[in-house]
Amino acid sequence: MNETTDSKVTETNDLQSIRFSDTQGTVSIIDQRHLPHRLVIEKIESVERMAAAIREMHLRGAPLIGVAAAYGMYLACRRIDGPDPRRHLEEAAALLRSTRPTAVNLAWAVENQLKLLEAIDDPKTWTSAALAEARRIEAEDIERCRCIGEHGVSLIQEIYREKRGTVNVLTHCNAGWLACVRHGTATAPIYEAQRRGIPVHVWVDETRPRNQGARLTAWELGQAGVAHTVIVDNAGGHLMQHGRVDLVIVGSDRTTRTGDVANKIGTYLKALAARDNNIPFYVALPSSTIDWDLSDGITGIPIEERSSEEIRVIRGAGRADGEILDVRILPEASPAANYAFDVTPARLVTGLITERGICPATGPGISALFA
Amino acid sequence: MNETTDSKVTETNDLQSIRFSDTQGTVSIIDQRHLPHRLVIEKIESVERMAAAIREMHLRGAPLIGVAAAYGMYLACRRIDGPDPRRHLEEAAALLRSTRPTAVNLAWAVENQLKLLEAIDDPKTWTSAALAEARRIEAEDIERCRCIGEHGVSLIQEIYREKRGTVNVLTHCNAGWLACVRHGTATAPIYEAQRRGIPVHVWVDETRPRNQGARLTAWELGQAGVAHTVIVDNAGGHLMQHGRVDLVIVGSDRTTRTGDVANKIGTYLKALAARDNNIPFYVALPSSTIDWDLSDGITGIPIEERSSEEIRVIRGAGRADGEILDVRILPEASPAANYAFDVTPARLVTGLITERGICPATGPGISALFA
Repeated sequence: MNETTDSKVTETNDLQSIRFSDTQGTVSIIDQRHLPHRLVIEKIESVERMAAAIREMHLRGAPLIGVAAAYGMYLACRRIDGPDPRRHLEEAAALLRSTRPTAVNLAWAVENQLKLLEAIDDPKTWTSAALAEARRIEAEDIERCRCIGEHGVSLIQEIYREKRGTVNVLTHCNAGWLACVRHGTATAPIYEAQRRGIPVHVWVDETRPRNQGARLTAWELGQAGVAHTVIVDNAGGHLMQHGRVDLVIVGSDRTTRTGDVANKIGTYLKALAARDNNIPFYVALPSSTIDWDLSDGITGIPIEERSSEEIRVIRGAGRADGEILDVRILPEASPAANYAFDVTPARLVTGLITERGICPATGPGISALFA
Repeated sequence: MNETTDSKVTETNDLQSIRFSDTQGTVSIIDQRHLPHRLVIEKIESVERMAAAIREMHLRGAPLIGVAAAYGMYLACRRIDGPDPRRHLEEAAALLRSTRPTAVNLAWAVENQLKLLEAIDDPKTWTSAALAEARRIEAEDIERCRCIGEHGVSLIQEIYREKRGTVNVLTHCNAGWLACVRHGTATAPIYEAQRRGIPVHVWVDETRPRNQGARLTAWELGQAGVAHTVIVDNAGGHLMQHGRVDLVIVGSDRTTRTGDVANKIGTYLKALAARDNNIPFYVALPSSTIDWDLSDGITGIPIEERSSEEIRVIRGAGRADGEILDVRILPEASPAANYAFDVTPARLVTGLITERGICPATGPGISALFA
């Protein structure tokens, strides 16, 4: 059952994208498809519902879908019956893994739960073990994002020290707390800068086709009172040419051990523009998005191709109060192709902002922090 | 009075964006704001209506607004009364000039008419002189676009000769016949390739915020039976990285004498991606878009900033038959900034396809063809 309220978050404490309910044993998420028009809280009681929520992008963002998948395994444990509990567990894992192919966090969280549970003999204790592990993964994500903010704010602070004026950060897609649990990755340094009183303004890429920037990042920043301006994805290069961007920070869905970054489609174009205009281009990521098996992102990272309907149809608020409408924006007969991510080669990335500090986007740079 | 039909053009002869009616002395245009959902023909009888149509983008595209402005001056002549016809003429010119700042064709067409008419002593003959001049400018545009197709097709033909497979062309915005009178600029080589039986497929950038690619180019190509796929503006870099684009052809709203190109916002990002992937990036332009006074496009070309409503609200077809709806896609409180063009520096342009042939995007290259 969903609970709908108007889309104003009033309590800072509410700024969390997923939440376990002690009393009910269920997991509540924000169904992000309705933002920024409505704040819909969805209560999830089964692994099937969680898998559907991930696949249909009620929630999204690499760190968040990792946490959600961990809770999904917990929900699967709650319903175990029949003669073969291990098979039930493996089916749940396969279901969750099948939902989204690009982000590495999801597969990692599922494997993690699977290994942990398969090492426990008594299936009766699986539920509590899986819950403890999901809560641990959740807490770890919150702490990682907090640390990313602590490290990343130094970049903003340094620009402010030189410029003595508002620092303009450009970001693409949503790597905010709606993509994580709290703080966000790319937004964590921004929120931390605001907390420290550094004047900061964010250029928010709309991020077609799902408009996560215009719908989610703009809403998030608005809730937190951070100055921001929405622009179309086409505009970033022009702003950079004219000195209107001081710093780019984006998130990552999967990072190779050599520093190639798979992130929302269009990230690569902004990295090219940043390089052409000598603007620092940073990627904020928890180490959970690093794929230690991959060295070439362009050939190695699977790029999800989603339904062309996401391009053909767009959702918005109509003129009537509260009315949500889907409208078609392409000629009926025209085909469309929908690639969800692209890969920014490490050579275009100034540095990675991780929970352990900032490092160059190179194999040795990453190893020095995490080996 | 407007005439609305379903959006299928059946006669090849209909593929013209502006048309003078001999019998009525009026000018008919396609009100492009309703495409691809409806084909609305708007009859224009006064310079004020023409200025409004240009400003509110019933029609757009550098070559077309030049022709439309020339007809606007003719419409002004038809209504001259009062004691000071020269002042009336200058007011009409000022009105037309004020509508759109970036394209050079509009200012050129207005100046051209003004000089020609001011040299004629008897205002009674202005109407016929202005009409003749408008028709000449129109015919010249058609011929220029035809020549651009003839020259540009050689690029497609050469790729086809090497590849022996479908040639994939990426284009941004609409530089088709809807932006000109007939043939288009960037599309002219594509239509000519199709005429010659060369298999060609077009990646159509959606082109936010006004979606001229998704609405107009996709519709145009569909009408002509050219294979095409709509993509979001974010996707071009990914496709280029994976060898899915053989050639980029875009139009130009203003070109400096050194080869810098002002075109729809986002063009610069595609030029960067083409350079990064060694893909030829061509700009198709009639020489009427060359600004002989400018050498630095980034500092010299005024970039139009349009209403943020174009980003906040999007128009599409609802579920009910024929229903056209505007929906809001941003949080109500979030500001948006809307820059209409960007400048691609000449260093990123492989060549210019003009009515006189293909030349390097350099001062000497352009001079060799036009000096």
